[in-house]
Amino acid sequence: MSKPSLTVGLVGYQFMGKAHSNAYRQVNRFFDLPMNVRMKTICGRTEDKVKAAADTFGWEGYVTDYHEMLADPEIDVIDVATPGNSHCQIVCDAAAAGKTIFCEKPIGNTLEEAEMMHAAVMTAGVKHGVFHNYRKIPAVALMKQMIDSGDLGEIHHVRAVYLQDWIADPQFPLVWRLDKSVAGSGSHGDLNSHLIDMARFLVGEFEEVSGHMHTFVKQRPIAGEIDDKMGAAASSEMGDVTVDDAVLVLAKFRSGAVGTFEATRFAYGHKNHAKIEINGSKGSVIFNVERMNELEYFNAEDPEGRQGFRTIQTTEAAHPYAGQYWPPGHIIGYEQTFMNWVADAVEKSSETRKWISL
Amino acid sequence: MSKPSLTVGLVGYQFMGKAHSNAYRQVNRFFDLPMNVRMKTICGRTEDKVKAAADTFGWEGYVTDYHEMLADPEIDVIDVATPGNSHCQIVCDAAAAGKTIFCEKPIGNTLEEAEMMHAAVMTAGVKHGVFHNYRKIPAVALMKQMIDSGDLGEIHHVRAVYLQDWIADPQFPLVWRLDKSVAGSGSHGDLNSHLIDMARFLVGEFEEVSGHMHTFVKQRPIAGEIDDKMGAAASSEMGDVTVDDAVLVLAKFRSGAVGTFEATRFAYGHKNHAKIEINGSKGSVIFNVERMNELEYFNAEDPEGRQGFRTIQTTEAAHPYAGQYWPPGHIIGYEQTFMNWVADAVEKSSETRKWISL
Amino acid sequence: MSKPSLTVGLVGYQFMGKAHSNAYRQVNRFFDLPMNVRMKTICGRTEDKVKAAADTFGWEGYVTDYHEMLADPEIDVIDVATPGNSHCQIVCDAAAAGKTIFCEKPIGNTLEEAEMMHAAVMTAGVKHGVFHNYRKIPAVALMKQMIDSGDLGEIHHVRAVYLQDWIADPQFPLVWRLDKSVAGSGSHGDLNSHLIDMARFLVGEFEEVSGHMHTFVKQRPIAGEIDDKMGAAASSEMGDVTVDDAVLVLAKFRSGAVGTFEATRFAYGHKNHAKIEINGSKGSVIFNVERMNELEYFNAEDPEGRQGFRTIQTTEAAHPYAGQYWPPGHIIGYEQTFMNWVADAVEKSSETRKWISL
Amino acid sequence: MSKPSLTVGLVGYQFMGKAHSNAYRQVNRFFDLPMNVRMKTICGRTEDKVKAAADTFGWEGYVTDYHEMLADPEIDVIDVATPGNSHCQIVCDAAAAGKTIFCEKPIGNTLEEAEMMHAAVMTAGVKHGVFHNYRKIPAVALMKQMIDSGDLGEIHHVRAVYLQDWIADPQFPLVWRLDKSVAGSGSHGDLNSHLIDMARFLVGEFEEVSGHMHTFVKQRPIAGEIDDKMGAAASSEMGDVTVDDAVLVLAKFRSGAVGTFEATRFAYGHKNHAKIEINGSKGSVIFNVERMNELEYFNAEDPEGRQGFRTIQTTEAAHPYAGQYWPPGHIIGYEQTFMNWVADAVEKSSETRKWISL
Repeated sequence: MSKPSLTVGLVGYQFMGKAHSNAYRQVNRFFDLPMNVRMKTICGRTEDKVKAAADTFGWEGYVTDYHEMLADPEIDVIDVATPGNSHCQIVCDAAAAGKTIFCEKPIGNTLEEAEMMHAAVMTAGVKHGVFHNYRKIPAVALMKQMIDSGDLGEIHHVRAVYLQDWIADPQFPLVWRLDKSVAGSGSHGDLNSHLIDMARFLVGEFEEVSGHMHTFVKQRPIAGEIDDKMGAAASSEMGDVTVDDAVLVLAKFRSGAVGTFEATRFAYGHKNHAKIEINGSKGSVIFNVERMNELEYFNAEDPEGRQGFRTIQTTEAAHPYAGQYWPPGHIIGYEQTFMNWVADAVEKSSETRKWISL
Repeated sequence: MSKPSLTVGLVGYQFMGKAHSNAYRQVNRFFDLPMNVRMKTICGRTEDKVKAAADTFGWEGYVTDYHEMLADPEIDVIDVATPGNSHCQIVCDAAAAGKTIFCEKPIGNTLEEAEMMHAAVMTAGVKHGVFHNYRKIPAVALMKQMIDSGDLGEIHHVRAVYLQDWIADPQFPLVWRLDKSVAGSGSHGDLNSHLIDMARFLVGEFEEVSGHMHTFVKQRPIAGEIDDKMGAAASSEMGDVTVDDAVLVLAKFRSGAVGTFEATRFAYGHKNHAKIEINGSKGSVIFNVERMNELEYFNAEDPEGRQGFRTIQTTEAAHPYAGQYWPPGHIIGYEQTFMNWVADAVEKSSETRKWISL
Repeated sequence: MSKPSLTVGLVGYQFMGKAHSNAYRQVNRFFDLPMNVRMKTICGRTEDKVKAAADTFGWEGYVTDYHEMLADPEIDVIDVATPGNSHCQIVCDAAAAGKTIFCEKPIGNTLEEAEMMHAAVMTAGVKHGVFHNYRKIPAVALMKQMIDSGDLGEIHHVRAVYLQDWIADPQFPLVWRLDKSVAGSGSHGDLNSHLIDMARFLVGEFEEVSGHMHTFVKQRPIAGEIDDKMGAAASSEMGDVTVDDAVLVLAKFRSGAVGTFEATRFAYGHKNHAKIEINGSKGSVIFNVERMNELEYFNAEDPEGRQGFRTIQTTEAAHPYAGQYWPPGHIIGYEQTFMNWVADAVEKSSETRKWISL
Repeated sequence: MSKPSLTVGLVGYQFMGKAHSNAYRQVNRFFDLPMNVRMKTICGRTEDKVKAAADTFGWEGYVTDYHEMLADPEIDVIDVATPGNSHCQIVCDAAAAGKTIFCEKPIGNTLEEAEMMHAAVMTAGVKHGVFHNYRKIPAVALMKQMIDSGDLGEIHHVRAVYLQDWIADPQFPLVWRLDKSVAGSGSHGDLNSHLIDMARFLVGEFEEVSGHMHTFVKQRPIAGEIDDKMGAAASSEMGDVTVDDAVLVLAKFRSGAVGTFEATRFAYGHKNHAKIEINGSKGSVIFNVERMNELEYFNAEDPEGRQGFRTIQTTEAAHPYAGQYWPPGHIIGYEQTFMNWVADAVEKSSETRKWISL
């Protein structure tokens, strides 16, 4: 492995920090790339937590102040995986330090921040990218190929919803994602940004939009501690929800297509239902991230009487990214069945019993 | 990370070798376990290939003769991930060497081999387990919980199919999985063994069985080289298929339940459709590995007029294993969207363009 | 059958005329009602066609001027199943004649017409109803029961789409449904009116709305003859499409719920996809008219780890209307399998062969 | 309507009597046939019930002894829709009387009966057919077209299940369908006969079969009165179940295909789940009578990366039978929404309120 290294410093160790760390740790195991990722430093403000994260996620070291990483000449990339209110400062500083920047979405909490960040990276002349990961799902990348190759013809409709239900219970506490000063917005920035990115990726720029935001539950129990989505304990004191619970948008695209967008955290039964449908003059596609390994495709040029939406399992070598993983039909995530097996086996290897898998 | 190590030596570096390596590399990142897995040695007969596998999969070193691993006192576990015809010898040798043994399914190519292997590990008094990974899928483990807790009542029916289509084309070449002397059997050992294991895991022991095996295509082009499922190039010379293309079984269980089992590689449109349904006196469950993050559940005690099969997304902390991974609704495999993103970003980090994700 | 009669005169003999005739002919065969429907007269302007329709659909007689039916003292009900541009006149005349009025949707082609019609029936003091048939689907009536009984709690979201594709091909001719002077509007009146009616039925009155209409294909070949949806032959001359191809609406309801509505005839792959989802504080329901015998239901009060959308087959005696038809699981429409059998058998009864069903 | 008549006499007025009556009453409304069906006489042993059935179902008259119908020279067809134990005698008598015979399935309760019936109709030289109505479903007829035209290639697999749950509760009473002396068999004759018929229709004759029958609940409360499936009240006295609850079969066909068949009344959650899948060398089809208007189709000749099971809505004019009913996407059964509307409207027409549909 004599390839050059791409050395990364990551800011943030919660949900996104865990996900990004995994990506860095695994990417050279599955992809034959021109560089090997080196996981040098992870940064967080709470020393015992970031130290534990470094160990668990596989980083060589940790710091509690991201400026230390900016000063490290070995670090090529700064990955910003913190809540939205800190993105702008970190990115501008990292750009000034000449680092490549990988930033979680939404870019900033306001348009002004985003523009400032963009100016900073352009002025500094540094490479930069936003972690719009849904573009990288095989089925979404396949949609892109199909649209670009003209398989769907002229696009008429975009129909996108992102439905979750984790705060539908009014007793769910006031976590940081419901605090505008930290999160910037609610379902709009957290969820709708994925839909907007997919729509722009697939159909191009928006021409005009109109829409509403709604907050169904205006006060909630104050969370015991600022934590990630699932981690807060409620108290009896109430505080104001300062972000949107739901956002609804109608749109026109420059291409002439029209679209509907809806993101909500109040759609009971839907856990992570990010679904986008596109109808064109030659066919349609439907994708739902909850069934991430499938793409529904209707080809209007199929013979009469034989037409119908087909479910493509995007696990073939012919599909984007999929060939890097497992044989056809073995969905991504298949490998975790073995990990679960090994976890149980390791548990039992320290016990007295003999037969492990039972 | 001052935990004790569980040091592993792996034999085999193809599809299963890749999957097992991933499990060892990742397991301590997601599970808090009493030991840390140490990936010391991988073994394969072809030096350049096993050396590359060691690098790619993250092993400290490699050997070309598994006896070297048996002689290594640091190695605790021998993992056997080779084609079935070598399992028996390796396992018996490893047992004699006092190693813990993790062995891929099917255990052996014949009942005699399996019995010999079992005798070897029992005589040696070593820990041992078979890599029946489907038991470890959250939805399958949930089915087990439901059955054990009586939620389904008395079990009446098991209905299991494992449908693939990768050799439905008669021109697909004669790879090692179609050669009885290497693979032992065809769809029966490769696919039906998963169904049988899940049925035993969930419903208990078989009482009696009857069935057939079928080979639809009796001769195929000889493969250029013995490789894994997808890797062989066909030649113009024909050879005999010596294993079953499909197997059909009727069964009675000791509990009084009855079952049907079918495994085939000739069911066009199904890539990895391992589906098991269980009907009991209080409800039913249906699982399909192609939709690995879902379990269909019918509760006969739901109120009249409100009954129906419900689709449980087994991604909640309340579900087995799932809590180790991502928030609810984020299916296992979700993390690979980030890996794909990073792969593209690494590619582009060595290029001149600035904006990475586009 | 000594019950009193409800004597009907029907105006129109195309698609809706056929559907309404069937309903009158069949209703006393399945429902035990206080009156028996008598199919006395059907009306249409083209004598040979209306005469044939009377025979085929089972009417005692026909007329070519609806005023004759108004003058018939035996006729209790005038059913208006014509294109929208004639509704207002017929309904006002029928109201003045003291008839009960059953009118197809949309009521009128303009708000002014609808208000005039409403004034006419109120002034005349006659019974009147609009043929909003989707309310009468067992699954929709069940949704209504669930909402009214509080099973879904407070309603937060309505999400409704009506997707068809029959004019997505730009060469599809300019039939009467694309002519504003006849049809009044396009997807809005034809399709969206069903969604609006279901939403009002289920969730109550609208508070405010905003939306757009779009016409993707602005000129089409002139149809050879004014006919129903599927019946027109195209010519080489082009004419203007004067109605909307698609309509998109955002809405707030008086109850505080918000909604999205979309109706289009340009969604390839969807034939009659009228889908409505409702999310409340205690659960959700999803209905799609293409799977008319099913209702998806999520109960947020199901036990943790066992929650999921369940598919209720609304074919049980416990479901509205369903008990009038067939045993559980036998979907409505089941009976037509026998009709098809008999059709073939009648064909073959006039032939020389002996064995009929083969 | 100057066409010749096909005059029918029907024996039986329960579930099948209702379904057949509907078919006769409706068939000339939807199909342009060489003869018009005349519903002359219905026969049943209990006078008040058969008289009511004649009125409700639309028969001109009734008799209580089927020999009267055999003696009626106007009657062309005798339709036998009684429980299986009376089929043989009625059919043999009707054949001797020179009548055309339409007989419900299963033909007879034993092979001997069936052979006797067949000999009777062949000796008499009368037209005859068995009411295998599932062949007449548009999707099944389409499967037949596809197989006959070679679209699926050589057939390798048939996979058929018929799952119901109406007797899964051990307290469900001992109705006539559980009494071998009346019904002949249980799930085998009632359900599996449909699967066997579809398989023979689609794939041809069986070569050999093996299988089991099971009775899970061997005693049940004696029903208060012999009635149809849903109509019996349980008593406290117990009686023996003398038919099979479930039947499992493995099969080979003359063509070389293999098959599995399972029919059960103990599969909780399935109401009328008659599902058949066929895999051939060029593709696959899947049909489920619970989603009667859909056919799943996989075409192995679709381009690489675009393959998948497609859901054909068999409601187009291009599909068998479907063109006789409603526009594309309007599933069979669509018309009953209007019937339900009219039922409510008729109810309300005898009330004082004015606005009917609300």
